[in-house]
Amino acid sequence: MGPTALCPGTFDPVTNGHLDIIGRASGRFDRVIVAVLENPAKEPLFPAEERVAMLKAVCADLPNVEVEAFSGLLVDYARRRGAALIVKGLRAVSDYEYEIQMAQMNRRISGGEVETVFIPTDPAWSYISSSLVKEVARFGGDVSGLVPPVVAERLAERLGAG
Amino acid sequence: MGPTALCPGTFDPVTNGHLDIIGRASGRFDRVIVAVLENPAKEPLFPAEERVAMLKAVCADLPNVEVEAFSGLLVDYARRRGAALIVKGLRAVSDYEYEIQMAQMNRRISGGEVETVFIPTDPAWSYISSSLVKEVARFGGDVSGLVPPVVAERLAERLGAG
Amino acid sequence: MGPTALCPGTFDPVTNGHLDIIGRASGRFDRVIVAVLENPAKEPLFPAEERVAMLKAVCADLPNVEVEAFSGLLVDYARRRGAALIVKGLRAVSDYEYEIQMAQMNRRISGGEVETVFIPTDPAWSYISSSLVKEVARFGGDVSGLVPPVVAERLAERLGAG
Amino acid sequence: MGPTALCPGTFDPVTNGHLDIIGRASGRFDRVIVAVLENPAKEPLFPAEERVAMLKAVCADLPNVEVEAFSGLLVDYARRRGAALIVKGLRAVSDYEYEIQMAQMNRRISGGEVETVFIPTDPAWSYISSSLVKEVARFGGDVSGLVPPVVAERLAERLGAG
Amino acid sequence: MGPTALCPGTFDPVTNGHLDIIGRASGRFDRVIVAVLENPAKEPLFPAEERVAMLKAVCADLPNVEVEAFSGLLVDYARRRGAALIVKGLRAVSDYEYEIQMAQMNRRISGGEVETVFIPTDPAWSYISSSLVKEVARFGGDVSGLVPPVVAERLAERLGAG
Amino acid sequence: MGPTALCPGTFDPVTNGHLDIIGRASGRFDRVIVAVLENPAKEPLFPAEERVAMLKAVCADLPNVEVEAFSGLLVDYARRRGAALIVKGLRAVSDYEYEIQMAQMNRRISGGEVETVFIPTDPAWSYISSSLVKEVARFGGDVSGLVPPVVAERLAERLGAG
Repeated sequence: MGPTALCPGTFDPVTNGHLDIIGRASGRFDRVIVAVLENPAKEPLFPAEERVAMLKAVCADLPNVEVEAFSGLLVDYARRRGAALIVKGLRAVSDYEYEIQMAQMNRRISGGEVETVFIPTDPAWSYISSSLVKEVARFGGDVSGLVPPVVAERLAERLGAG
Repeated sequence: MGPTALCPGTFDPVTNGHLDIIGRASGRFDRVIVAVLENPAKEPLFPAEERVAMLKAVCADLPNVEVEAFSGLLVDYARRRGAALIVKGLRAVSDYEYEIQMAQMNRRISGGEVETVFIPTDPAWSYISSSLVKEVARFGGDVSGLVPPVVAERLAERLGAG
Repeated sequence: MGPTALCPGTFDPVTNGHLDIIGRASGRFDRVIVAVLENPAKEPLFPAEERVAMLKAVCADLPNVEVEAFSGLLVDYARRRGAALIVKGLRAVSDYEYEIQMAQMNRRISGGEVETVFIPTDPAWSYISSSLVKEVARFGGDVSGLVPPVVAERLAERLGAG
Repeated sequence: MGPTALCPGTFDPVTNGHLDIIGRASGRFDRVIVAVLENPAKEPLFPAEERVAMLKAVCADLPNVEVEAFSGLLVDYARRRGAALIVKGLRAVSDYEYEIQMAQMNRRISGGEVETVFIPTDPAWSYISSSLVKEVARFGGDVSGLVPPVVAERLAERLGAG
Repeated sequence: MGPTALCPGTFDPVTNGHLDIIGRASGRFDRVIVAVLENPAKEPLFPAEERVAMLKAVCADLPNVEVEAFSGLLVDYARRRGAALIVKGLRAVSDYEYEIQMAQMNRRISGGEVETVFIPTDPAWSYISSSLVKEVARFGGDVSGLVPPVVAERLAERLGAG
Repeated sequence: MGPTALCPGTFDPVTNGHLDIIGRASGRFDRVIVAVLENPAKEPLFPAEERVAMLKAVCADLPNVEVEAFSGLLVDYARRRGAALIVKGLRAVSDYEYEIQMAQMNRRISGGEVETVFIPTDPAWSYISSSLVKEVARFGGDVSGLVPPVVAERLAERLGAG
C-alpha cells in the first residue's frame, strides 16, 4: 500500500490544532486524506458539507491534501481509499487512552492492515478543542487565533454575536 | 462473611474481556455472583433478561458462577447476597480513577463492610468494551473473537448486517 | 487587581469537598466569591436559586465569602467582579486534564488577566462528587458525612427516601 | 490452592498505609503472608530483619498474618508458600501503571497460577510512602500519625532528631 | 499570615518555564520568595550560590521577588519566612501526582498552616525541564529560547561546546 | 526528505515489544534505521556492539531495516542520516508523557525538521520492558516468549541460570 495518510475526525469545526496536524502530515506523507465523519454520535453544529467546505478552504494551499466526508467503519473507508496509515494528533493523557483503544480495535478488525500513528499536538494548541471553541463562541468570547478566520466568521454567523 | 465475590456490570453485551475476569474470579473464590445492573443511565441495547441469558449461556461451564439482575445500590445488593468482595477488571487509567472513586464510596456507605478488589484485564482484551463492540457491529465490522459466538449472533440479529 | 478569589462551579448540590476548598480559599484570600453556574450543560437537580441558598447557608460562618449565580463566560464575570484569580479544587488526574485545558483557555481569552490556581482536595473528600452523591441518595444510601446536613435534608426531600 | 494472600513489599519502614492494606486483607482472606523483599534495588535504611521485626510488632494483633523475608522471584516464593493471590494497595495512577505491568508479568511467568488483586488505599493514607516518611523524619518533621509509634521511635533513633 | 508566596525548587538551572511561573506569581501576590533547595538528592550541576545568582539576575526586574537558598523541611522554612502559600507550576500528569502527594504531606506536617496552590505552566514551556535542557546543552544542542540568555551562557561555559 | 524512519532506543536487550514496532515500521516506511544509543545514563548490561549484533540477528529477515549505534543528540544523528521521522512504540501513560516531552523538544531543537510519531505497542507486549526482562532473568525466571531466542540465550549466559 502506498504512503497515503488518513486524518479522520468530526471537525465540528476545524481548529488551529487540527490544521497543525494536517499540515505536518502533509509535509511527511505523499498524500493526505482528511476524512470527515458524517454522523457523529452527538448532533454536530455544522452539517457535514459545511465542515468539508471549511476544511477545503483552510487546506487550499496544501496541494497533497484532499477532504472528503465518510460514514461507516473507518477501516472500511481506509481500505477503499488505499490508506494504510491513520494519523491522529494527541493532546492529553485522556485523549491518549481512548485513541489507543480505537487504534488497537482498528488494527484488529482490519487484520493488521490499517495502522494508526500519533503525532503530539503543538503545545500552542494543546488546550483547544472544537467543543471548547464552540462554548467560548456561544457566549461571545473571542476565538480568533484559535480557529482559522473563515471558521471564526461562520461561528459568529451561526451562534450569533450581535 | 464467606468468600463470595460479586462481579457487577451492565454487560450490554458481555465481551471476552468480561468473561476473562469472571473466569479468573471463579478460579480464586468459592462462589461468584455476576450482578447485572438492570437500568443503567444509558438506554441499553439488550433488555436485562437478555443480558442475563447471554451471561448464563457463556458461564455455563463455570459451576460456582451465578448470574442475576439487580437494581438499587450495589452495596445493599452485596449485603443481601452475603458478598463482602466486589471484583472488577481494570483496563485503562481512566477506568481506574472512576472505579477507585466508586470503590471508596461503596466502602464508605457500607461502613467498611463491602470491599472492592481490582484484577488487571488480560492484555489481549485491553481495548475491548461493550460500547466499542456495539459500534463496530453496527457498521458491519467483524466482532467474532471479541465476544463469545452466542453474543456475536445476537448482535448480528439485533443490529442487522444485511 | 485586589486579592479576590473566585470559586466557580455548578454545586448541584454543594458537597463537603466543595466546602473544604471554599473554606481554605477564605483563609488565604481577602475575599472569596462563590460563583454558581446558572445553566450547566446537564439539567441540574436543584434550580440555581436553591443551589445559591444552600451555599449561603453552609458558608454563613465565613464572613469574607459571597455567593452569587452567574451565566455566560466565566472570564467576563470574573472581570466584572474584579477577580483576577480563579480557585479550583482538584481530585483526580482526569479532573486535572480538563481543568488545565479550561484554565489555559480562560487565560488566553482574558488576555492573561484571569489566572487559575488549583488546590488539592483534602484526601478525606477525594472520592466525593455531586453526581455520585445524587446517585447514592437516589437509591436511599446514607449521604450524611458527605454533604452538609442542610443539603442531606434537601436531597432526601427531593429524591424521596420513604 | 487455598485462600492465602501475599502482601509483598520493601516496607522500609512499614507505614500506616501498608498497615491499612494488611489489615483489610486479613479481614477478607483466611491467611495473609507479609513478604519482605530482602535486597531491594535501592539500599534500604533498615536491614531486612529489622523491617520484619517492626512488621511483626505492628501486626501482632492480627492472628492470621505472618511476616517473613524473601529474596528471588516473587512468583517462586508465592508458589513455595502456596499463595495464589498477591494483594497490593494502590494509591496514584503512576503506581497503578507500574503495578499492572508487574502483575501481568507475574501472571505470565507463573503460567497463570499467580494472580494479583489491587485494593485502593484508604484516602487518609493516599499521600504517604516510605520514602516520603523518611525524608520528613530526616529533617526532624513530625511523622507520628503517618507510621505506627514503634516505627516513629526507630526512625528517630536511626535518623537522629536530638 | 500575609500574602507572601513561596516558589520552591532546585532551579539547576532556572528555565523559561520557571520564570513564567515566578512572573505570574509576582503579578498576583504581594511578595514572592524564590526558595532554592541547597542540597537536592541528585548532585546539582551548579552550586547553590550560582543557582541563586542566576535567579537574581533574571528576576531583577520583578521588584517584589526575593531569591534565597534554603535547606531542611520546606514547611519549616515557609513558617520562618511567614509564607502560608507555596506556588508551583504544573506541566504533566506525572508531575501532578508527585506534587499533590508533597502538597498533602506539607499541609499535614504543618498542621494545615502551609497550603500549596498549583498554576498550569504556559503551554509554550510545557516540555521544558532543567534536566532536559542540560542534556541538550551537554551534546551541543541550541538551548537559547528555552532558558534566559545568562543561563545559556553559563551552560555553554560549564558543559563546554568547543 | 525521503520516507526514512528512525527507531531509537537503548535496546538493552531488544524485546519482542521492540521487534513488533520495528516490524510494523518496516511494513509502512521505505527504510527503517534502528539507532542504538551507545552510552545511556544507566550502565547497560550489554555493550553497544552486542546490542547491535542481537538486533541485526533478529531483524535479518527485514530487508529494509538497518541497525547502527549512535551517540550525541538524536536530532543531529537523524539529520546526518536523512531521517525526518522518529518512530516510537508506546505502552503506558507514563511512557507517553516522557516521550511527548522528548518529541516536542526534538521538534524544537531541529527547527521543526524532525518529527516523532508514536505507534501503540501490541497489547500482547504491553507489559514487557528491557529492565523487567533483565530482572526476571536475573532470578532465573523464564523469559522465552518475551524476547527472541537469541536474546534469551545471551541473557542466560550473562546472568547465569545454572
